[in-house]
Amino acid sequence: SSTEGHENYFSREFLNRMSEKRTNSQWLEAKQSSPASVYILFFNLNPLVTPGTDEMSESKMEFKLCRLHWGSVKELATKPGTTLIFLGVEKRVKFASPSPAEDEDGLTAWFALNTDSSPIEDLDLSNPNSFYLKPPMPGVLRLSSDEAGVIAQARSVLAWHNRYSFCPTCGSRTKVDEGGYKRTCLKEDCRSLQGIHNTCYPRVDPVVIMLVIHPDGNQCLLGRKKTFPAGMFSCLAGFIEPGEVIEDAVRREVEEESGVKVGPVQYVSSQPWPMPSSLMIGCLAVAVSTHIKVDENEIEEARWFTRQQVIDIFTKNSQPAFTMPPRQAIAHQLIKYWIGVNANL
Amino acid sequence: SSTEGHENYFSREFLNRMSEKRTNSQWLEAKQSSPASVYILFFNLNPLVTPGTDEMSESKMEFKLCRLHWGSVKELATKPGTTLIFLGVEKRVKFASPSPAEDEDGLTAWFALNTDSSPIEDLDLSNPNSFYLKPPMPGVLRLSSDEAGVIAQARSVLAWHNRYSFCPTCGSRTKVDEGGYKRTCLKEDCRSLQGIHNTCYPRVDPVVIMLVIHPDGNQCLLGRKKTFPAGMFSCLAGFIEPGEVIEDAVRREVEEESGVKVGPVQYVSSQPWPMPSSLMIGCLAVAVSTHIKVDENEIEEARWFTRQQVIDIFTKNSQPAFTMPPRQAIAHQLIKYWIGVNANL
Ligand SMILES: Nc1ncnc2c1ncn2[C@@H]1O[C@H](COP(=O)(O)O)[C@@H](O)[C@H]1O
Ligand SMILES: Nc1ncnc2c1ncn2[C@@H]1O[C@H](COP(=O)(O)O)[C@@H](O)[C@H]1O
Ligand SMILES: [Mg+2]
Ligand SMILES: [Mg+2]
Ligand SMILES: [Mg+2]
Ligand SMILES: [Mg+2]
Ligand SMILES: [Mg+2]
Ligand SMILES: [Mg+2]
Ligand SMILES: [Zn+2]
Ligand SMILES: [Zn+2]
Repeated sequence: SSTEGHENYFSREFLNRMSEKRTNSQWLEAKQSSPASVYILFFNLNPLVTPGTDEMSESKMEFKLCRLHWGSVKELATKPGTTLIFLGVEKRVKFASPSPAEDEDGLTAWFALNTDSSPIEDLDLSNPNSFYLKPPMPGVLRLSSDEAGVIAQARSVLAWHNRYSFCPTCGSRTKVDEGGYKRTCLKEDCRSLQGIHNTCYPRVDPVVIMLVIHPDGNQCLLGRKKTFPAGMFSCLAGFIEPGEVIEDAVRREVEEESGVKVGPVQYVSSQPWPMPSSLMIGCLAVAVSTHIKVDENEIEEARWFTRQQVIDIFTKNSQPAFTMPPRQAIAHQLIKYWIGVNANL
Repeated sequence: SSTEGHENYFSREFLNRMSEKRTNSQWLEAKQSSPASVYILFFNLNPLVTPGTDEMSESKMEFKLCRLHWGSVKELATKPGTTLIFLGVEKRVKFASPSPAEDEDGLTAWFALNTDSSPIEDLDLSNPNSFYLKPPMPGVLRLSSDEAGVIAQARSVLAWHNRYSFCPTCGSRTKVDEGGYKRTCLKEDCRSLQGIHNTCYPRVDPVVIMLVIHPDGNQCLLGRKKTFPAGMFSCLAGFIEPGEVIEDAVRREVEEESGVKVGPVQYVSSQPWPMPSSLMIGCLAVAVSTHIKVDENEIEEARWFTRQQVIDIFTKNSQPAFTMPPRQAIAHQLIKYWIGVNANL
């Protein structure tokens, strides 16, 4: 299976989404005000966290999500600038810090709030060092693997609410439904209320991200954007367009960005990227041409690197030829996967 | 490579999208009024087609897209209820009917129009039997493989324009930009004009569709919705949610819809589904439990079918145990792929 051995950052799920409860407002309301339920909080889409343990060095320090409870978010939750969504319930395996109380059904529900006005002082925080990760990138890359997945889910849905308050079909205001997984137009005769259409549902943007392998099997193509840190190269990537399959999107984006033509494409693994709501679909792609001509609007430079140059970076053998994207990015995992597999796909 | 041997309906591309031309309004305008350019027309998202050759039986008859030219669509193109998008240029391989004239650069551009008022009589049609495929489904499944891909692209983008005329961020009107691949808010200080956000871009909804294999390797799980034709069973499917990887979406949707738990998941191939704009991501999934409990809101019945029952349908050996989805659906291709591969993933 393509999943074995590939657990990407942002993709560990410790919640069961229990989507069937989203339409059960009685159940949702009971869980909302239950003292056992856990709340995570965002201020303008920046999550509230606490610093990890002091033992780690500053640069490697992990942040932890602040887990709040109904008592301390009750007031905030009903403010007009606040959005509340249901995330799911903890899976059987008991997770980290136990809840103060347990519900009768044994299910610990998680909710997320996004607010446009949150003075930290008003919250009843157990850790006074709590702060909002701002800007979320690269801060959200410094969560534990366990907590990154819930941030991916919560931030994507909340970012959608933040940008889609109006009905795209008629321009009217909409209201939040189904635990935060639907927005319904408030104009009675709006077309969006007839039949099933996607305007009501959260958006997920599929993106292809690919490591292109040289026809000789021994080099890979990496590129850099102007905005990258000096020396960093990464995989090419781009949005899948309407009416396009994954493999053709890979071929089109590689040719657009680097001029290189691609033949066979192999899916490897995927990763949510909640800035704001992408699904990165990671592939290996075999080039059938080698001449590079970059699209200068998007890419500053693209280059073939040898397998040995890549291996040297992982083994810290010699002066690195380039800097890798961080391990939290699927690009890093694709490169690592390639040097682990045979040269021929 | 996962693409070999899998060419799904809606996925053959005979156009090069040439996305770099979308921002070149001079080039676009010249191509728009060139007599060599090809126009395909939709009336309320239903494509204008002509019947195929008379030789085929009625049930198998293929429809052909009407290829119009600037002269006959000029007036329609500027009406307020019409949307015009650029599709791309024909790839080198010369396609079917040659254009009446050829442009200096040798590139034949394709455009699509959607209109809310198109009396067929006003068009200068070469074939008087032309008509709008209405409802598009299952009509659009009866195009040739060559033409289905361009319908997937055109209909998805046009359906987006049809439902997203207003800015979801502020509710104002928007205008069409970049050859139809962007909509820009007309309110000067709208947040959607700062930074990159997805509200401006066409939507693609990733969906997982999976053939679930019994732990014994010899049976597959198929379900039917109430709306299916009598006797038809197909693969389970569902929208990928925000913050979810492909493999977890497979596991979640299978468990939600059938109660069956899934272990390993293997990507097979993908297919655009332009009703309105989905990307079907086709997978094989190995069940780790077998008891079925259907979600009655979505599924009427789900059942394990044996490999032999499936083979019998393809070989027409005996009374079929169920009816397959049509070959144009990726579900059909997944089932066919399974009976062609080894029982063990
Ligand atoms: N959903 C989307 N979100 C953001 N940008 C998009 C989206 N779809 C298309 N684009 C465009 O894609 C560009 C990035 O290129 P790429 O990621 O290579 O496809 C952006 O600058 C946008 O012009
Ligand atoms: N983008 C979307 N378009 C249509 N329906 C959606 C979308 N996202 C979620 N849904 C919901 O998903 C249901 C179909 O279930 P499924 O396809 O199994 O996920 C629909 O009835 C909607 O309630
Ligand atoms: Mg790109
Ligand atoms: Mg792109
Ligand atoms: Mg690109
Ligand atoms: Mg479904
Ligand atoms: Mg679903
Ligand atoms: Mg479902
Ligand atoms: Zn509306
Ligand atoms: Zn706006």
